[in-house]
Amino acid sequence: MTPKIILASNSPRRRELLRQIGLSFTVSPADVDESILPGESPEDYAVRVALDKARIAAVRAGEGIVIAADTIVVVGDSILGKPADAREAADMLALLAGKEHRVVTSLAVMDAGTARSVTRTSVTKVWFRDLTKREIEAYVATGEPMDKAGAYGIQERGALLVDRIEGCYSNVVGLPLSLLGEMLREFDVNL
Amino acid sequence: MTPKIILASNSPRRRELLRQIGLSFTVSPADVDESILPGESPEDYAVRVALDKARIAAVRAGEGIVIAADTIVVVGDSILGKPADAREAADMLALLAGKEHRVVTSLAVMDAGTARSVTRTSVTKVWFRDLTKREIEAYVATGEPMDKAGAYGIQERGALLVDRIEGCYSNVVGLPLSLLGEMLREFDVNL
Repeated sequence: MTPKIILASNSPRRRELLRQIGLSFTVSPADVDESILPGESPEDYAVRVALDKARIAAVRAGEGIVIAADTIVVVGDSILGKPADAREAADMLALLAGKEHRVVTSLAVMDAGTARSVTRTSVTKVWFRDLTKREIEAYVATGEPMDKAGAYGIQERGALLVDRIEGCYSNVVGLPLSLLGEMLREFDVNL
Repeated sequence: MTPKIILASNSPRRRELLRQIGLSFTVSPADVDESILPGESPEDYAVRVALDKARIAAVRAGEGIVIAADTIVVVGDSILGKPADAREAADMLALLAGKEHRVVTSLAVMDAGTARSVTRTSVTKVWFRDLTKREIEAYVATGEPMDKAGAYGIQERGALLVDRIEGCYSNVVGLPLSLLGEMLREFDVNL
């Protein structure tokens, strides 16, 4: 029998990705402290936040398999979160234009009954094409950047900004599906 | 004023990709001879078929900007089309498992009023993870492989088969969006 699957995220994009692979699940969003600790690397940060989210949802659920994730955009040494306003969104897009950045998603899968957990991280390189100031303004005006780390959505109009990627595509959307499939097999969930 | 856009394809996946970038369009599918000519390379084949589709739709429309595409899956020297039956789908998936293949999409954009056309080709490398016979059978049983070149759909459950890609993701789905955006700008259509 397939155990109950719980997604510890309120992201509509993550829900959509789980539906894409035919998984039945319930949603139990977890709010965690998302401030970066001194000296913490982007990868360490993403793992910590994903695991915190998984723990909160696991305690709440009591049983079942919890899936939690944290996605960050890293350019040079900077971590880009969600832009606070249109101005910040435009600044982020100007920073990403014409060069490579990394999208890092850490996944935590936890058995709520036993608290056994597995964490893994997927990194995808993304190359933006050159963007004019006018293109950036037009994209920001669509409103699409506002709720997204790095201020773009590759699964929407943001696809037009991206030349190419290296790695897992669904990782850029917010949940690396192939890696998730592998991790779920360790909990006897076969997709 | 934005000219009328015509998609010369009946593919639901291509329609979905054009909707993703907010394009308004009509659909005018073109049936062409899809047999491979002696000595024709995969890239030459895809360009020829895409251009044939664009010409047919352009003549029919009389005016507007026509978008046509042809997508093939190339592994070694073989071109994989759509599988004829479940048996052939399983054979294709066994051939792709654990190794790299290329997805080649040629795009043709044509001004139906002047017959001016531009063609470009996008190539994405795709790495499948190892697959057991049982995994292949389970995937074929979903029915998903049957109407797709190479017998998988990366935008559906097929995402679970793919370790990583190098290149444009929407190209693997059937229409490279960033390249299309570039080509449309040559026809004064700005997305």
